[in-house]
Amino acid sequence: MLIEIDFKSNDALYMQVHDQIILGIAKSLLHEGDQLPSVRRLADEIGINMHTVNKAYALLRDEGFIHLDQRRGAVIKVSKDKKFRPSLEKDLRLVAARAMLKGISRTRLHEMVDEICDEWS
Amino acid sequence: MLIEIDFKSNDALYMQVHDQIILGIAKSLLHEGDQLPSVRRLADEIGINMHTVNKAYALLRDEGFIHLDQRRGAVIKVSKDKKFRPSLEKDLRLVAARAMLKGISRTRLHEMVDEICDEWS
Repeated sequence: MLIEIDFKSNDALYMQVHDQIILGIAKSLLHEGDQLPSVRRLADEIGINMHTVNKAYALLRDEGFIHLDQRRGAVIKVSKDKKFRPSLEKDLRLVAARAMLKGISRTRLHEMVDEICDEWS
Repeated sequence: MLIEIDFKSNDALYMQVHDQIILGIAKSLLHEGDQLPSVRRLADEIGINMHTVNKAYALLRDEGFIHLDQRRGAVIKVSKDKKFRPSLEKDLRLVAARAMLKGISRTRLHEMVDEICDEWS
């Protein structure tokens, strides 16, 4: 899977790496047990600091999307624990707020959820 | 409206200020035409750098949630233009991806959208 960084984006670089790995799993480009590139290799490939990749991997581990193994490095492992629901709800709340303020109706928001889920199922 | 910063959060400080102002508008704690505190005052009040507040206000302006007026400072002004829909869709896609991977069903996602919209309507 190719990770592409937008250096002009408002999103922090580590967050862009983090987000793209999550979307990669959702789109089945990355599967349970797949090894991610080493920190050094990914940093070299996309032209960012190793610290930035480390930060992305640490967050993915904390959120239960990867396992950091001393021997195999970063491996996709999605845990189904519920401790990240509050953070998910917080983010959904913010997206919904922005949508509402910009005049996107609740119905349209539902349609968007369906369109996204349809793409992946 | 009280802005509260979580210094232990993974979210960048300017993004926390940005997000809370958007939620403040959605919850009708802030209204069209309301003046936000000056950069210096807000920075003092919440104990962060002026540069951080500036960054939050600049992003809110770029996204069409506030107007930066030379005389009145930052004023709530929500534009209904559609140029931010792609960024909204991107964020919704990421929330949906995380939800799906964590075993939250599409139905539950719809319920969550409704619960949030009900709170604000």
